Amino acid sequence: MTWAATVLTLYPDMFPGPLGHSLAGRALQEGTWSLETVQIRDFATDRHRSVDDTPAGGGAGMVMRADVLARAVDHALERAPAAPLLVMSPRGAPLTQALVRDLAAGPGVSILCGRFEGMDERLFEARPIVPVSIGDYILSGGETAAIVLLDACVRLLPGVMGQPSSGEEESFETGLLEYPHYTRPYEWEGRRIPEVLRSGDHAKIAAWRKARAIEDTRLRRPDLIARHGDARRPPPSGARREDEGEDR
Amino acid sequence: MTWAATVLTLYPDMFPGPLGHSLAGRALQEGTWSLETVQIRDFATDRHRSVDDTPAGGGAGMVMRADVLARAVDHALERAPAAPLLVMSPRGAPLTQALVRDLAAGPGVSILCGRFEGMDERLFEARPIVPVSIGDYILSGGETAAIVLLDACVRLLPGVMGQPSSGEEESFETGLLEYPHYTRPYEWEGRRIPEVLRSGDHAKIAAWRKARAIEDTRLRRPDLIARHGDARRPPPSGARREDEGEDR
Repeated sequence: MTWAATVLTLYPDMFPGPLGHSLAGRALQEGTWSLETVQIRDFATDRHRSVDDTPAGGGAGMVMRADVLARAVDHALERAPAAPLLVMSPRGAPLTQALVRDLAAGPGVSILCGRFEGMDERLFEARPIVPVSIGDYILSGGETAAIVLLDACVRLLPGVMGQPSSGEEESFETGLLEYPHYTRPYEWEGRRIPEVLRSGDHAKIAAWRKARAIEDTRLRRPDLIARHGDARRPPPSGARREDEGEDR
Repeated sequence: MTWAATVLTLYPDMFPGPLGHSLAGRALQEGTWSLETVQIRDFATDRHRSVDDTPAGGGAGMVMRADVLARAVDHALERAPAAPLLVMSPRGAPLTQALVRDLAAGPGVSILCGRFEGMDERLFEARPIVPVSIGDYILSGGETAAIVLLDACVRLLPGVMGQPSSGEEESFETGLLEYPHYTRPYEWEGRRIPEVLRSGDHAKIAAWRKARAIEDTRLRRPDLIARHGDARRPPPSGARREDEGEDR
């Protein structure tokens, strides 16, 4: 079954954009997923096809109108009633790999992309729209965020990745950053691949990778450890150093 | 002066993509910023132009070679020696609006985009590359993340936004989510714009917006409050409800 993405936007020409290339582009051509854009402006009713107006209470910029957006949203809900409807917004819940996995396992997704200063808040009280944020920074609109969300979902669709890596090993699937990677050449600019990775001892390699994942997460993203509690304890002291001491 | 972006990628055709439209596209045409792509494959030296190899220690996928990447990186460092060199990676430091602002205030940025399972870790020990993550999820490559980072930076360049909103009021600039927006019509589907926003009392409006920003942040993103400490205390109890009780 085709995973169906519907994007509500003032800039349909931005799509598929980068999603028309590489893995996602091939999957789009092969019908693994579909991408339809809905032009929000088509749901304006006045002569000037206005979609925005000045902010109530004053301030810079323009705000997208609830009535126009609601008509576009109702159209999307009618076309894809089973798909979750998201809005990309810095006020939303942070996108996680768990949400990506849920979305990829469903029938598809509809995504509302905002522009200007924001959207009339009443829209979110009146319609079943889930605000999602890809991170704590401000974009010029929701479109590039939607592209990121779709990229994350599409790569998980069956058949898209030639040789999918184990979910257990990827960053965030375990609540940890992924361990570091190495490949040939064995020695490069005087730096060698850690010996343990050449040992052929699969258990030892797995233990080293897990220890590195934990250590790197502790150093770089202690917030991830805190969020997942202390279920993941540090490795026995020294477990890593004996294997790679000479390589750094 | 033109803000110069250089993107190192295996998929130069993904650029400018969505950045060729709307605000960023216009700024690109007007020379406010420039965008150059560097094809990483051009720095391969073997007959097959290989950029990747199997992971040391085994596992799924392929790993990008340190030697090939280093040549591409050295090329970028030579072309744009003053620009920070970032790599988009889920193992990186989370992108923040503060970093976006720093980058936008500088001469530009060079961005290395990975594909496959990852890049040989020795590259990051041997070259001055800053790993940055746009969020805790996995993409098919660094390209869509680079587009997001560039979008965030470009909108801050002088002249790009027609009527820039105050940095003080945007999400994250104050460590808080932004307050909700409203615009005409005054009544829509039985829902009214909060009365305070129609009062014309600028101090009262500012106080209401600040209270809503704090309340929404506490409800939706308590982690932001925790991260910024208790410098921002909650508003006096009831400060908000009298203004909008009837509107919800």
